[in-house]
Amino acid sequence: MIGKNIVASAYVENVEESFVAFAVATGEALEYKFFNASAKNIDEAVNAAKAAHQVYKKINKHLKASFLRTIAEEIEAIGEVLINRASAESGLPLARLTGELGRTTGQLRLFANLVEEGSWVNAIIDEAQPERKPLPKPDIRRMMVPLGPVVVFGASNFPLAFSVAGGDTASALAAGCPVIVKAHPAHPGTSALVGGAIVRAVEKMGLPKGVFSLLFDSGYTVGAALVAHPEVKAVTFTGSYKGGMALVKLAQERQQPIPVFAEMGSINPVILLPEALDERAEEIASTYAGSITLGAGQFCTNPGLLLAIQSPALQLFINKLVDLIKVVPSATMLTPGICENYQKLSQQILEEQGVELLSVSDALNDAAKNQALASVAKVTATAFLANPKLQEEIFGPYSLLVVAEDLIQLLQVVNVLEGQLTTTIMSAKNELSKYTDLLNRLTDVTGRLILNGVPTGVEVCAAMQHGGPFPATNDSRFTSVGSTAVYRFVRPLAWQDWEDELLPDELKKSNPLNIFRLTDQNWSKA
Amino acid sequence: MIGKNIVASAYVENVEESFVAFAVATGEALEYKFFNASAKNIDEAVNAAKAAHQVYKKINKHLKASFLRTIAEEIEAIGEVLINRASAESGLPLARLTGELGRTTGQLRLFANLVEEGSWVNAIIDEAQPERKPLPKPDIRRMMVPLGPVVVFGASNFPLAFSVAGGDTASALAAGCPVIVKAHPAHPGTSALVGGAIVRAVEKMGLPKGVFSLLFDSGYTVGAALVAHPEVKAVTFTGSYKGGMALVKLAQERQQPIPVFAEMGSINPVILLPEALDERAEEIASTYAGSITLGAGQFCTNPGLLLAIQSPALQLFINKLVDLIKVVPSATMLTPGICENYQKLSQQILEEQGVELLSVSDALNDAAKNQALASVAKVTATAFLANPKLQEEIFGPYSLLVVAEDLIQLLQVVNVLEGQLTTTIMSAKNELSKYTDLLNRLTDVTGRLILNGVPTGVEVCAAMQHGGPFPATNDSRFTSVGSTAVYRFVRPLAWQDWEDELLPDELKKSNPLNIFRLTDQNWSKA
Repeated sequence: MIGKNIVASAYVENVEESFVAFAVATGEALEYKFFNASAKNIDEAVNAAKAAHQVYKKINKHLKASFLRTIAEEIEAIGEVLINRASAESGLPLARLTGELGRTTGQLRLFANLVEEGSWVNAIIDEAQPERKPLPKPDIRRMMVPLGPVVVFGASNFPLAFSVAGGDTASALAAGCPVIVKAHPAHPGTSALVGGAIVRAVEKMGLPKGVFSLLFDSGYTVGAALVAHPEVKAVTFTGSYKGGMALVKLAQERQQPIPVFAEMGSINPVILLPEALDERAEEIASTYAGSITLGAGQFCTNPGLLLAIQSPALQLFINKLVDLIKVVPSATMLTPGICENYQKLSQQILEEQGVELLSVSDALNDAAKNQALASVAKVTATAFLANPKLQEEIFGPYSLLVVAEDLIQLLQVVNVLEGQLTTTIMSAKNELSKYTDLLNRLTDVTGRLILNGVPTGVEVCAAMQHGGPFPATNDSRFTSVGSTAVYRFVRPLAWQDWEDELLPDELKKSNPLNIFRLTDQNWSKA
Repeated sequence: MIGKNIVASAYVENVEESFVAFAVATGEALEYKFFNASAKNIDEAVNAAKAAHQVYKKINKHLKASFLRTIAEEIEAIGEVLINRASAESGLPLARLTGELGRTTGQLRLFANLVEEGSWVNAIIDEAQPERKPLPKPDIRRMMVPLGPVVVFGASNFPLAFSVAGGDTASALAAGCPVIVKAHPAHPGTSALVGGAIVRAVEKMGLPKGVFSLLFDSGYTVGAALVAHPEVKAVTFTGSYKGGMALVKLAQERQQPIPVFAEMGSINPVILLPEALDERAEEIASTYAGSITLGAGQFCTNPGLLLAIQSPALQLFINKLVDLIKVVPSATMLTPGICENYQKLSQQILEEQGVELLSVSDALNDAAKNQALASVAKVTATAFLANPKLQEEIFGPYSLLVVAEDLIQLLQVVNVLEGQLTTTIMSAKNELSKYTDLLNRLTDVTGRLILNGVPTGVEVCAAMQHGGPFPATNDSRFTSVGSTAVYRFVRPLAWQDWEDELLPDELKKSNPLNIFRLTDQNWSKA
């Protein structure tokens, strides 16, 4: 079945144009043909999702949790073929993909637990006061309800964890929304394998088939048509600023505008405080040589900007970083386009006023294609402040060190920073408390503040925030990682003076689901 | 000071064009001149708000609560002059405005209590697991933080409760955001009086002055410039679809797009089930004659659409409604423009295919200007289904009765309904449970479902949802009434492995503020 579009959990035949996948490290064509989805496929997928929504939106929470867990099991059951195909298509090493698979199934189970526990619906109850003067108070009960069909765009840099059954799909299904996935054309085989796992889970659980569709396209037509479809209620995307904003624009131009959650990347500033450098300049350089080049730098949390005040210790940091970057083995990038773009941008940046190359890897693997060589450049804060172009993300194993003359100039740089997914501070013990102005400013431009760590490696948990002020994401009020990602796909609905037996179980007087509810400002299971 | 713009809690002199207010019931000019704010006023107000944000965003919760309570006290201290001016400017009766004043101060105190209790920040904590394999788990703590300066547009139909110190201002200040109010030009004197109360509260509490500004404009220039200002982070608006969508567009065209919360009205369908009509047709007619004409129908929750299946009981309902509407005294509308528009639209609708006038009030008050006569029209479901124009809101004491031939046709009408703030069902005992398809559909198009009540009269409480699917509002995920309205102005921020003493009090290990926090899926004060 691999290669066929999946419409409402069923494989369909296409006669449209087809395409194949390539092993990015060798350039060789891989097995299976994939078919660009037709306008009919799109319409049927969305309409089936709309119909499924009428059932799935009020499905029993245990069944929904089992569905998510079954998807995880079905993915695990695919075995080595999945990791191997993902590695061929993405160029990512097997070890990384094995870890990513664990993250993917872990996310599905996290949302299963969230759904089964049930309190995530944020039930709020204000009981009636019939005797209140001058007017009686009605009984009002409110909870989150799902928006409807969600379109998920697979991301190139996480072929498992942010693709067909990744965090977006898991959180949308957890919210109670049917999902239509637009597969990323760089890893269609991986997408097809995971899509098959979801189809089997839908069948095993006896769910309405329209709860899942998977459509392929080597271009942009299918994605644009999905976003424009009147019955689609929300869209998720992880990728470039240009791609994200194009979808945002399409969604706003609809007769009924819908939310798009676009995670568009970030340069994730890392501020190296002076005492930290005095204490452990070389250790920090080691840590960051690793973070900058992890996964060929292809993370939205890649530390693309290092910021420090000039000092002898900073020179030690630079020397160590230069040495380490030089020997980082080249790595296969996700696609030829991403690789070309990285090579072009990491060269072009050196032509900008005051930017100088610090170090570039000379460990090229000649035997493989689409190789990225890690590189680090340096610029003065004065030049950085004068050139907004230096804040643009260069997707790959790259970072720019900005050297300030003093704390005042460092604060000036922080003041011009655009919105970021993360900001990290490397600090000595008791040093951080001397920088309250800096910290105060950072809270306005960041989604996550990290102390003495690295931004890469995003913990999947309830407290995670992966979403920052524009342009890191288009809507900083939501996260795409962690259990609160579910709130992207719901809205509140209130029932006033409703009959108890017709209320959703979450709101019934007896609290039959035994969930936490906010009654008179008290979270309790009463 | 009345009439002067307030920039950063200080009255400023203007030399720009000025305007006066009119008593809408008499057409007479009222005391005081008001000055259109200048570009300089706008820029200074927003920049002062930005500066104030750095302090106000982390202000002590007790001080913030006291500020909100002091605003309420200062408004109450204004005395009769406020209600009298509001009545002259808006045409609303004194009794209604006395009630609205109570709602306004009540809202301020509701948010003061919310802020003082403190759990609203949704603190979520995942503690570190340094021993976890293969990677240690970091300590992550997340809470809601304020977005920054908010622009509030005063609404014409609530000169107190949705104007200068109304629900939007109260919730934005509670969230920790400075507020710049664009006064509604229909009630500038009322706005100035309330603005003075806020200025006194800012002074008494010793808050940064930039936390509040109030700007006047008889046109649209000031509002547009405020929405376009790069340092403004969110906008609230209650009014027409056209006005709301114009602001949404401006906000999206900015270099950094910002959220707009536009509550754009609704026709608030009321479904009269057959057994309910059999039981109490005349009683329901009485209730609805009152709800349709309350406040001259100038509520976003006005029941503009009545929906029923033809029956002898429905005829009883019609007969009674016709008699009651005929004798409803005419009422002064908010502005000459609103009155003209009401007269025009309530006439034009009668020219649409199949629409017939059922009843119009003949109790005109000749002695007053800008009078609205209540009216009710009727149309068959067949004609309604064929004409989307009949779903457009007619702002005023008007409702359209749609008569279906049978349940199937009633469901067809429900299926074409656009997004609504509210939907109401009038039902006999045990009747509602026979309409599960209907109820299932209604949950997708409504923000609040009401049983055997009226949509007018929106309870201000934690469980209230006042916001429905597009076009009722542009973002159904938020509410403009009730304590959760505060969430319009915040976003999550996570701290990873942060030093405890530098965390906000809400996230410190010892929970010094004694708030509910979600730790390992448990809401507790631990």
